[in-house]
Amino acid sequence: MKKVLVLGAGMVAGPLVRYLLDQGYQLTVTSLVLAEAEALVGGHPQGRALTFTLDDEAGLDAMVAAHDLVISLVPFNLHPLVAGHCLAHGKNLVTASYVAPAMAALDQKARERDLIFLNEIGLDPGIDHMSAMRIIDAVHGRGGYIKHFRSYCGGLPAPEANDNPLGYKFSWAPRGVLLAGCNGASYREDGHVVETPSARLFRDMHLVSVPGAGDFEAYPNRDSLMYLDIYGLGEKTETILRGTLRNHGWCDSLFNFARVGLLDQEERDSRGQTCGGYFRQLLGCGADQDLRQAAATKMGVSATCLPPANLEWLGLFSDQPIGRDAISPLDLLGKLMLARLQYGDGDRDLVVLFHEFKAVFPDSGRYERLTSTMVGYGVPGGDSAMARTVSLPAAIAARLVLEGKISQRGVLRPVSAEIYEPVLTELARLDIDCQEEMTTY
Amino acid sequence: MKKVLVLGAGMVAGPLVRYLLDQGYQLTVTSLVLAEAEALVGGHPQGRALTFTLDDEAGLDAMVAAHDLVISLVPFNLHPLVAGHCLAHGKNLVTASYVAPAMAALDQKARERDLIFLNEIGLDPGIDHMSAMRIIDAVHGRGGYIKHFRSYCGGLPAPEANDNPLGYKFSWAPRGVLLAGCNGASYREDGHVVETPSARLFRDMHLVSVPGAGDFEAYPNRDSLMYLDIYGLGEKTETILRGTLRNHGWCDSLFNFARVGLLDQEERDSRGQTCGGYFRQLLGCGADQDLRQAAATKMGVSATCLPPANLEWLGLFSDQPIGRDAISPLDLLGKLMLARLQYGDGDRDLVVLFHEFKAVFPDSGRYERLTSTMVGYGVPGGDSAMARTVSLPAAIAARLVLEGKISQRGVLRPVSAEIYEPVLTELARLDIDCQEEMTTY
Repeated sequence: MKKVLVLGAGMVAGPLVRYLLDQGYQLTVTSLVLAEAEALVGGHPQGRALTFTLDDEAGLDAMVAAHDLVISLVPFNLHPLVAGHCLAHGKNLVTASYVAPAMAALDQKARERDLIFLNEIGLDPGIDHMSAMRIIDAVHGRGGYIKHFRSYCGGLPAPEANDNPLGYKFSWAPRGVLLAGCNGASYREDGHVVETPSARLFRDMHLVSVPGAGDFEAYPNRDSLMYLDIYGLGEKTETILRGTLRNHGWCDSLFNFARVGLLDQEERDSRGQTCGGYFRQLLGCGADQDLRQAAATKMGVSATCLPPANLEWLGLFSDQPIGRDAISPLDLLGKLMLARLQYGDGDRDLVVLFHEFKAVFPDSGRYERLTSTMVGYGVPGGDSAMARTVSLPAAIAARLVLEGKISQRGVLRPVSAEIYEPVLTELARLDIDCQEEMTTY
Repeated sequence: MKKVLVLGAGMVAGPLVRYLLDQGYQLTVTSLVLAEAEALVGGHPQGRALTFTLDDEAGLDAMVAAHDLVISLVPFNLHPLVAGHCLAHGKNLVTASYVAPAMAALDQKARERDLIFLNEIGLDPGIDHMSAMRIIDAVHGRGGYIKHFRSYCGGLPAPEANDNPLGYKFSWAPRGVLLAGCNGASYREDGHVVETPSARLFRDMHLVSVPGAGDFEAYPNRDSLMYLDIYGLGEKTETILRGTLRNHGWCDSLFNFARVGLLDQEERDSRGQTCGGYFRQLLGCGADQDLRQAAATKMGVSATCLPPANLEWLGLFSDQPIGRDAISPLDLLGKLMLARLQYGDGDRDLVVLFHEFKAVFPDSGRYERLTSTMVGYGVPGGDSAMARTVSLPAAIAARLVLEGKISQRGVLRPVSAEIYEPVLTELARLDIDCQEEMTTY
């Protein structure tokens, strides 16, 4: 029986662990907190839960040596450390993270050792790549090319669980979500490159209608241009845009939060301060001024409109003590958001992935609009849609690697048919289905 | 001295009347209300104010006969009546309205009589046509073609006068603005036609950044496709979209207002009713239900978010009596909006016109992004930007017609250089300046 090492028992690991145990593999699941790993294994006879920290490099080395494949769900910057031990012991590796430069640098060594280091096989990155490549390869195979490609992904509360004026809930710490709002973005539109600086990110917004899921705000997600190469697209692809989906009001709120400094990451003294007092200092406004009006004035909007209303709703003008000696505006905002934007018991989450392609077939003059849509809802009290869609692709891919079904070697993304075809087929069997539609013009 | 007849002394006629009087023409200004016409003439020795209704067709006939040119600022459906008398007496006609089929049908007769019936020479339509054609003709003259064309126009409160959560103020009755929200739209994007049904109009939204004016919501404005012909564009123009600009939050609010039936035009019994009571009946909800929550539920959104908050802010849940025996939901909404979304004394309005072209020059492979931007602010206590930009183009065009500077005949729009060049030049002298910018790729 093949043995699989799962490093990191995070929020999303559950469906992966259960899938691989159901397939009959022996699993070792590690976590900083034993109870978390134990909860995932659930007493399964083929599963073992361990407390483990990557600081123990000798222990890591021994564990890698004792397993047939490693699935690394730890923070992405720790994957190269894990990969080093995989190289040393000739073990294959699967991660759901973006290929960082330190991982990309291991490509040659992995090939030399005849190893598979498969990354970006979660949701986004992951299912997005696979469902896109299935369409791109089909269009190229039929002699066409992709003229426009827009791809959107979002993890949100389901409509009935969307009971707040920001339209968002956190399943983990909000710091990452807010930090993502500090990135700029680049993409190609109508044949030329658009660079959106971070301060303009939430103003580079358009609405997107996703069949079966509703209407969402979309703003660009970091560097879309690199996917021209990764997806095998070329100069004829005039538009490539990867966007993030949010509910109505998010972009205007976040844009204006940034305008009053609430995405600043520098810590400020907050000893003995209330939220309102801290924000008053951040705005530099006097004790007699109304905070909502002062915020609105600095935003350049009416005090009656959504962004200042949302700050009040979050409690930023309140007498609530901060309870820390120093905090950055971003972390204070995150703390308030985390407190008010929580999934409640029985709340379902929603995962939406939507591609829109416009393809040209020069021989026939045919012009097709092709879409791929995946809409998933969490199970109340059970797995979230996010956990299923992030971890099941990695679990399926791990099985394919263990079964010897993947012929490529080196640092990989799931962009070739030998990976995406069986993974998408198995995901569809598990009700994670990328529905394709086509219209001609 | 040439004599000009100005029919209809509406909200926007002031700058036109003063411009033509300053040019030395004799003006007759008519209105249903004598005081309005008198206010426009302002006691000028060359001006005459008259009470007049178009029901008096004999009077109209005599007046047309006694003048050299007619400027018709009456509702657009009355222009053909006026045009009939112009045909009979061989007089030229200028309007700022769209060419309706009944006006278009007069083209042959006007040509036969050697007459100019110049329409669509206000702001939108008007300056939009002229500033667009100046760029389109220049691109064609240099051997290029327009690949993408997006054109946006909006009349809004200036930022410092934008003190309400809808971001809008009315300078006249809101019925027209709300009715425009009941239209569908059609345009071409990426080479294919998009038909947006009226129920989806406010969901077909993207943000637009206008240099020097800020960021706006944009949604499509009726039939953009007819401008492919009018502007001399062809199949190579893959995108043509004309959009309306609004401030942040407008589209989500109006979309959801429509969802609860507030854009319905059918009258309902309102005898002795309050706003809240009427809306409760419209929603079909019981007396014990919270109206804001009931509206939010029907919208499918959280009661804390902007659209239900805006309904409360407008007073729709209030005990305010309606004061009419019957009213349609659209007219009740319009009444509440008119009451709360008024320009105050000293409030400036803002007019924004923004074109974005992407032009290809096949010989050189050059790719240009060209923009034309016109941003105008009203004068506190004086002319609104809307009045200046709607009426001055018509005034200038009337002068050109009287001076014999226009060689074309028939039912015209200002899309040829002999009209747009002198009008745009004169507008720039009057500080209505369409600034052009170009970037290459």
